Amino acid sequence: MKQKILILGAGRAATALIDYLLNEAVKNDWFVTVADYDEALAKQKVGNASNGKAVQLNIKNTSKRRELIQAVDIVISLLPVNLHYLVVKDCLKYKKHIVTASYLSQEMYGLDREAREAAIVMVGEMGLDPGIDHMSAMEKIDALRADNCKITAFRSYTGGLVSKDNLQDNPWNYKFTWNPRNVVLAGQGTAQFMSEGKYKYIPYNRVFQRLDTIQVEGIGKLEAYVNRDSLLYKTLYHLEDIPTLIRYTLRYPGYCRAWNALVKLGWTDDTYPIIDSELMTYRDLLESYLRGVFKQYPAGYNLRHHLADFLRIDRSDPIMEKLEWLGIFDQTPIKLKNASPAMILQDLLMKKWALQAADQDLIVMQHQFDYEKKGKNYRLVSTMKMYGKDSVHTAMSKLVGLPIGIFVKLILQEKLKLRGVHIPVIPEAYAPVLTELAGLGVVFDDQVQAITMKD
Amino acid sequence: MKQKILILGAGRAATALIDYLLNEAVKNDWFVTVADYDEALAKQKVGNASNGKAVQLNIKNTSKRRELIQAVDIVISLLPVNLHYLVVKDCLKYKKHIVTASYLSQEMYGLDREAREAAIVMVGEMGLDPGIDHMSAMEKIDALRADNCKITAFRSYTGGLVSKDNLQDNPWNYKFTWNPRNVVLAGQGTAQFMSEGKYKYIPYNRVFQRLDTIQVEGIGKLEAYVNRDSLLYKTLYHLEDIPTLIRYTLRYPGYCRAWNALVKLGWTDDTYPIIDSELMTYRDLLESYLRGVFKQYPAGYNLRHHLADFLRIDRSDPIMEKLEWLGIFDQTPIKLKNASPAMILQDLLMKKWALQAADQDLIVMQHQFDYEKKGKNYRLVSTMKMYGKDSVHTAMSKLVGLPIGIFVKLILQEKLKLRGVHIPVIPEAYAPVLTELAGLGVVFDDQVQAITMKD
Repeated sequence: MKQKILILGAGRAATALIDYLLNEAVKNDWFVTVADYDEALAKQKVGNASNGKAVQLNIKNTSKRRELIQAVDIVISLLPVNLHYLVVKDCLKYKKHIVTASYLSQEMYGLDREAREAAIVMVGEMGLDPGIDHMSAMEKIDALRADNCKITAFRSYTGGLVSKDNLQDNPWNYKFTWNPRNVVLAGQGTAQFMSEGKYKYIPYNRVFQRLDTIQVEGIGKLEAYVNRDSLLYKTLYHLEDIPTLIRYTLRYPGYCRAWNALVKLGWTDDTYPIIDSELMTYRDLLESYLRGVFKQYPAGYNLRHHLADFLRIDRSDPIMEKLEWLGIFDQTPIKLKNASPAMILQDLLMKKWALQAADQDLIVMQHQFDYEKKGKNYRLVSTMKMYGKDSVHTAMSKLVGLPIGIFVKLILQEKLKLRGVHIPVIPEAYAPVLTELAGLGVVFDDQVQAITMKD
Repeated sequence: MKQKILILGAGRAATALIDYLLNEAVKNDWFVTVADYDEALAKQKVGNASNGKAVQLNIKNTSKRRELIQAVDIVISLLPVNLHYLVVKDCLKYKKHIVTASYLSQEMYGLDREAREAAIVMVGEMGLDPGIDHMSAMEKIDALRADNCKITAFRSYTGGLVSKDNLQDNPWNYKFTWNPRNVVLAGQGTAQFMSEGKYKYIPYNRVFQRLDTIQVEGIGKLEAYVNRDSLLYKTLYHLEDIPTLIRYTLRYPGYCRAWNALVKLGWTDDTYPIIDSELMTYRDLLESYLRGVFKQYPAGYNLRHHLADFLRIDRSDPIMEKLEWLGIFDQTPIKLKNASPAMILQDLLMKKWALQAADQDLIVMQHQFDYEKKGKNYRLVSTMKMYGKDSVHTAMSKLVGLPIGIFVKLILQEKLKLRGVHIPVIPEAYAPVLTELAGLGVVFDDQVQAITMKD
């Protein structure tokens, strides 16, 4: 009987996955159903593929959802994370495999026994980040261990950027290639990591000030701020005794200092509404956060000077150019009603940082492992970078979609016989996926150098 | 029949109230029952008063609680705010008046009709702040309006301080006279107020930097940081059209800059636990928040210098002396398990900022009203200050307890016939209470001066 695949969700993240699976479907005689609330979107992604079809689905429509799930062998959920559970329950009931790119919840882990009894595999975190980060890191970690190396530091850097060529008139050197809300709220809470055997904490007010930098061949210097959740990876990667463990997010140089100005200003706060926001301009909002009100500025002094003084920066600091470019000094109406500062900022940025049709996004991932071998110290630097083709065929979509697609193929071909609940940190899962990813151009470049340890 | 009063809670806030009511009980032939979970505490507060008794009560013991409430005419709840509802329900059921010093919730306001039908009064915010602040402000506001003045600005300052004489060896010039947790978490969220017709916002990262100062006769200069909730008072005080409205908290000069260092450090965060906190010293914790780890500091450089650089302050800045005095550089064990930074800081401060037996606390309240009358501009500055006698007979206890006691007396004597749910912002409530407070030494000193408005 023909094997069948159901893909739930046909948005930006789905493009490369659908293409990959439709292509494999011809070779393997599978059939792919793509379901989305927006039928036109699903149809556009499926095109006139012979082994696929698009259907309309409201995921809350239980009978329709179950009908679709019952009819297939494996389900891929690209739904928002809070909707996964509906699908997961059905997959257990009808004994269908399920793959997602989302973080696994504790509830999901708790279904392991049930999944094994149903002889299905339920895999999460099988995208880029989380996903390729897990697989590429664990491959090195396992290899170093097998080689009797003692890992003393693990630093991991990932960034969703845009080709420099598409940033000529954008002083921030940044555009949205992923969830804008996550970008605006990034760093809230306290960053936690390990450094030389000590737990370290960076509060939000300093996250975008306390930067690291890396060099990437062909791209140059990138800056990195610390992610919130590095400590989780100690247990996830079995690095319980590692002295240094930090995960970072990458940006082009200069971004973080300027973003920190917005944090300092209070514009990333999502916890309260601005009263009468629909009656205000961006300039009004800016004035709401500055001390003093100048009905008329004295000669030789203006709102820009006022802001520079407030930020304690020089009037010619590059931060000022970035803020100017966003239009925060302009009498442009905000229009949003009852919006939090973060919502207003996100709305403004979505206009300014929109990916244009021909823009090529850029994903950079770098792992650095410091290790000791026979009394000597080394650093392994493992770097992957990939450019997208355009705003639809993004590197992001490829790097999220391909691991899922490959994993689905391995399951359907029974080359992988994993059962139960997993994330791809075990060799059985990551090794075959990484091998095929490499064939598709997802390659990590490895460099090893001897290092001297600071005392 | 003898009128009876029930006081629930015999803690620090209750001392002056119990004394006042036991004294009035003799004059008016009342009987006062003081109930507390800690019977010894209740007994100590009641002493050998002829018209009073102490009883033990677990407030969750419904039958005992109801028995006590049924037996009296009026109930005073000094319980933690989340326990009021138990008492409120019973008071409605048995038609007993109830008075508290806590903020009224929306649920409480919703009981107005029921309270009127039961012919009882349910009063909240009848303490110091909230309480005396409402009454003293509304008295002036109503008087200015009656005098055809247009109020253009209302600034209100309140502080719970300690006599300078008791702060000789305390560089912070501060001790706890009230809930320590509130002091540690103060300013979190975003301060919101009105200034010259515009809504203004101050994020937490700037609250303790953006200060105002006032002068108080006999005390000198005090500094003031903006309270979180000034905008609520627009409707509460019927000041809908006022261009400037700000509420502040007072401290002795220098406190806020130093507190801001703790905020910047991240030590006021209550949202996550410090891993292994029970195995750490304060010095370890400090190092967890600084960049870099010095196993051994280079010659001429140490942790104090490191912190000063981090805070971007001079090594001889007075902030350093305050931090040193707290012991944050010391290898003293924290001992608390799984504690948030804020919990650790609170625990440390409770040792350092403990009120000593003979210490005299000091309450300062100042209202400033700018107004226009017949085309001229004036400022009315109305100031109240009161010192406590010692750490039991505090000014705080007096200023929280006396308004309640007086209000209870007015109700029992039927001089006040208020029914329904109220806070003391109406003349019927505030006028008689303020009159009697003045007789007990709670006096506002008023000064009016002509002012010139900035353009």
